[in-house]
Amino acid sequence: MPTDPDDVRASLERQSFMTLLGATATLVESGHVRIEVPFRADLCQQNGFLHAGVVTSVADSACGYAALTLMPTGSDVLSVEFKVNMLAPARGERVVADARVVRSGRTLTVCQAEVHAVQTGRPDVTVALMQATMIAR
Amino acid sequence: MPTDPDDVRASLERQSFMTLLGATATLVESGHVRIEVPFRADLCQQNGFLHAGVVTSVADSACGYAALTLMPTGSDVLSVEFKVNMLAPARGERVVADARVVRSGRTLTVCQAEVHAVQTGRPDVTVALMQATMIAR
Amino acid sequence: MPTDPDDVRASLERQSFMTLLGATATLVESGHVRIEVPFRADLCQQNGFLHAGVVTSVADSACGYAALTLMPTGSDVLSVEFKVNMLAPARGERVVADARVVRSGRTLTVCQAEVHAVQTGRPDVTVALMQATMIAR
Amino acid sequence: MPTDPDDVRASLERQSFMTLLGATATLVESGHVRIEVPFRADLCQQNGFLHAGVVTSVADSACGYAALTLMPTGSDVLSVEFKVNMLAPARGERVVADARVVRSGRTLTVCQAEVHAVQTGRPDVTVALMQATMIAR
Repeated sequence: MPTDPDDVRASLERQSFMTLLGATATLVESGHVRIEVPFRADLCQQNGFLHAGVVTSVADSACGYAALTLMPTGSDVLSVEFKVNMLAPARGERVVADARVVRSGRTLTVCQAEVHAVQTGRPDVTVALMQATMIAR
Repeated sequence: MPTDPDDVRASLERQSFMTLLGATATLVESGHVRIEVPFRADLCQQNGFLHAGVVTSVADSACGYAALTLMPTGSDVLSVEFKVNMLAPARGERVVADARVVRSGRTLTVCQAEVHAVQTGRPDVTVALMQATMIAR
Repeated sequence: MPTDPDDVRASLERQSFMTLLGATATLVESGHVRIEVPFRADLCQQNGFLHAGVVTSVADSACGYAALTLMPTGSDVLSVEFKVNMLAPARGERVVADARVVRSGRTLTVCQAEVHAVQTGRPDVTVALMQATMIAR
Repeated sequence: MPTDPDDVRASLERQSFMTLLGATATLVESGHVRIEVPFRADLCQQNGFLHAGVVTSVADSACGYAALTLMPTGSDVLSVEFKVNMLAPARGERVVADARVVRSGRTLTVCQAEVHAVQTGRPDVTVALMQATMIAR
């Protein structure tokens, strides 16, 4: 039986770092998790864009929890590795990381995430793409 | 003329996100930058280890600034992409990211970083390896 | 003016390694290139599946030429870096790499490729995903 | 008991693709494997350099077999994922991939490889760096 979405959210809420970032899961469904983080001046790199590490952190958590939705109840998930391409500066009102499982195995799960910057009145901009491997414990 | 270490440190100090993490550069020399972050309960994932995003953030900044040390004065640096393998849980008193330039080109710079977890009385543990591409602007 | 598809194919035909593999481009359009390689017993790893290097080689060429379709006439393209996740053993009659540009910049182009294994009478299987950075010269 | 170097070589010799490339293992020891491939005109990309896929293929096999040296007797090894940065054009008399295990786990093994181009009378040139994850079966 796959992990219940409430258990996925409960695990995410134990990630104190997501709380520090102000990040929240706005969608948790089977094989797909969305995490959003509002722009904040203390999350930036030297030019006032969101730091690549912030973008990566929410993409990583989104991938991990997307993987967890397909793992058996009681599983825990850890990041094995991930790769991120930064496509555009991360600015706007918030960034939204959408992670989807692309292969769900017994031990390893592979996910892809797209991170968009959102600003009212402007089209969304894809700021990063992640390809990640997660492991069940 | 390569970028002065003081200018590298000045740029790093404009990264508000490093301040939020409590991260500081403890070594800035030609082609090699070290950034450390003390363990803090609000930087963790669901099991109380430092979040992979924290580890990645300091490794990314270390790679970027290692690259910047070899770029001409007045350059700015942005992350093109990076890949991280998580090797062990990040716990202990602090994590230390050592980034070194492995190829310095006119436009692109390739860096590798090792991140260690440090705890008094115990041997250091390598917690992550990063391979990154940086671009000069 | 972007590179003409005929010029893209001409460059691909100068890749002697694609000839050695028996690989051919079956689609070259703006931002999207497909390269196929028939299964052959001399392209395998130790278990009789296509070697990950073969899968990667066609995905890399597909990404490079997808990037080239959007570069100005007269450009040449080189691989900066790529990352591949192997999702399933590559067996069947042939593998097909579809590469698409996800961000086209003046200097750098980011592509993603999906590689499928194809066998008559069976559904296609995704065997690998690539995320790649290409550079114009 | 770790896999015997003779068994590692025997598995490598079953990789028909390495035979096609003319690649041979010139060093197999605990946690370190070296594979070399002589330059050949039919292994090239459009400019007459060795194709990135050739460089990647030998680095991947070297990583896989470096991992296998530390896996229990009777293990088989598969590539989970790898990431390659191309640092310089691969030309010269031959390329040499040196892969070393950086973390050996029960299920997953992480390796790094450096690939050098070698030409008599010239210093070696690092042409690529790989960071790879291998899995035991």
